[in-house]
Amino acid sequence: MADMNDVLHLTADEARAFASDVFAAHGVPRRDADTTARCLVRADLRGVETHGIVRMPGYLDRIERGLVDPAPELAPRRVAPAVAHLDGMNGLGFVVATRATEEAMAIAREAGTGLVGVSRSTHFGMAATYLLQAVEAGFAALVFTNASPAMPPWGGRREMLGTSPFGAAFPNPGGQPFILDMAPSVAARGKIRKALREGREIPEGYALDADGRPTTDPEKALQGVVLPIGGAKGAGLSMLMDLLCGVLTGAAFAGHVGDQYKAFDRPQNVGHFILVIRPDLFLPAGGVAERMAELVATVRANPTAEGFDEILMPGEPESRTETRRLSEGIPYRRADLEPVIERARGKGVTFPG
Amino acid sequence: MADMNDVLHLTADEARAFASDVFAAHGVPRRDADTTARCLVRADLRGVETHGIVRMPGYLDRIERGLVDPAPELAPRRVAPAVAHLDGMNGLGFVVATRATEEAMAIAREAGTGLVGVSRSTHFGMAATYLLQAVEAGFAALVFTNASPAMPPWGGRREMLGTSPFGAAFPNPGGQPFILDMAPSVAARGKIRKALREGREIPEGYALDADGRPTTDPEKALQGVVLPIGGAKGAGLSMLMDLLCGVLTGAAFAGHVGDQYKAFDRPQNVGHFILVIRPDLFLPAGGVAERMAELVATVRANPTAEGFDEILMPGEPESRTETRRLSEGIPYRRADLEPVIERARGKGVTFPG
Repeated sequence: MADMNDVLHLTADEARAFASDVFAAHGVPRRDADTTARCLVRADLRGVETHGIVRMPGYLDRIERGLVDPAPELAPRRVAPAVAHLDGMNGLGFVVATRATEEAMAIAREAGTGLVGVSRSTHFGMAATYLLQAVEAGFAALVFTNASPAMPPWGGRREMLGTSPFGAAFPNPGGQPFILDMAPSVAARGKIRKALREGREIPEGYALDADGRPTTDPEKALQGVVLPIGGAKGAGLSMLMDLLCGVLTGAAFAGHVGDQYKAFDRPQNVGHFILVIRPDLFLPAGGVAERMAELVATVRANPTAEGFDEILMPGEPESRTETRRLSEGIPYRRADLEPVIERARGKGVTFPG
Repeated sequence: MADMNDVLHLTADEARAFASDVFAAHGVPRRDADTTARCLVRADLRGVETHGIVRMPGYLDRIERGLVDPAPELAPRRVAPAVAHLDGMNGLGFVVATRATEEAMAIAREAGTGLVGVSRSTHFGMAATYLLQAVEAGFAALVFTNASPAMPPWGGRREMLGTSPFGAAFPNPGGQPFILDMAPSVAARGKIRKALREGREIPEGYALDADGRPTTDPEKALQGVVLPIGGAKGAGLSMLMDLLCGVLTGAAFAGHVGDQYKAFDRPQNVGHFILVIRPDLFLPAGGVAERMAELVATVRANPTAEGFDEILMPGEPESRTETRRLSEGIPYRRADLEPVIERARGKGVTFPG
């Protein structure tokens, strides 16, 4: 029997083909299964394993429970010259957000900027996926989503806001684009769970206990709430995501987005806000690309602070991991994949590893 | 002779009339002088005195040096169906940004969303001014600016990025709107200067010294750089402001925006990015207002964390100050106003206090 701590390597192609087959075997049309697989494996390539194929059982479970529609017919509807609405019809968030980003780019080609508001979507994985989709087509973008409650409003102690990513991107045709994909919380709950498993305290400022008091005890922190970056500032950013993705679009808001792993009485009703901007609006063609190259060069030339060897652009560590994993393969712990492999086997899909 | 620590009170009308007269006496057309005065006094009303009329000498100085044009003829130019460019012509940032916000709203009325990119502007004061302009007309908005360098990119130790405000707003016809106006730095340099004057240490995490090492000594901190909220996250937000306001629009970027108080060899060439969104795009009229009221009620109902008595919306403390000062008057320390009064006297303008 294989050691469960074994690490195995898959090529991106192998991982994508496997994931796509598993989704297809759960009723997802091949094109959408491919899209979903591409999004998940891109997270694995970029070292964001928390949003990669290990999460597949959660999505498949919600398909089987009838809470995610595996085959919605998505039809963006233009509601103003520069704005479309997309009803996600409880489809896989990956498919919905990819379609919304495409639509926002199509609008931006005509109108200069394109906004798509999305309601009735589900967890869309890594925000960087859609940021990359935009910059790789030459656009700047803001990609926001709301999420199930994990953080209180500033001054509160009960979770209401999501630790939704704030996503922003700016293209750099000649090099590293700007990819900012940041949670407004100081630390993810996963990090606190890890501290608990390893018997370590967490730093002050990560979380409050159930009574709203600062705590360094990971167990108490998990019964309480995580805290935002910059105090009121991070909480304000998260509220902005809820306003633009929820209140504005018609999706759930104010703590009512369903938790993917806990709320089995209803679809999630996640909302997204995807804004795409053509970069050649104000300067002649090539002007912005030249200026972007100059900005990146200026960043790199900054003398380093204590503890740093070099200065990277936002998103660059993940791009480096992606380049390496594209050639060396993606490492997975067999134990982490076992639940996915199990489900695949049940549907007659063979794991390539 | 009056005690320089005397506090005097002006009504908002008195303060605005005085400020407008002073700008008019410096060659600013009355309409633009009124706009500038309204912006500055609104900051004073909201308790943001660092952006109020005490800053007037800085603006007047740059007019006298020929670095700010007191009477530019601003003409926004539509560059795409949903986008306009505004050349600020080195005018007062208050006048330029007010005009840009007007234009963005006009575009949003037609196109659903309106984006105005601004180049060749100057310091525009408090971002909330333009956020309020938008929400009071019923719109959601993002208002970004870049600024002279004060913060390094993440991992660096030399200032390059601004501590530019990230501004976002969402209207609430029935109550307190959402007004987020946040610097991406943990603390303003002004706060560090205050610690130095009072002989106090500053908390770790506020600043690096000139060698890029964390410091709690305010004197060393002032020779170094301020630090962003959330580490790489706040630095990423500030870079986003520089990309959208500078690289994209044609304004200065990457540390080249002129410092209002130090760079006397050239205009500042600040850039702004103003995006306005109609809130009735996705839901029937009134739907969003109802949902916003529900969100605010949910925020208020959250049980408080240790150290809090009540939970406020972003922007609400400033709104409360404004309500109070509109009835009680705005308190100014005579010593802080003396330089403005001096300049006014030189132009034959009488101070009302």
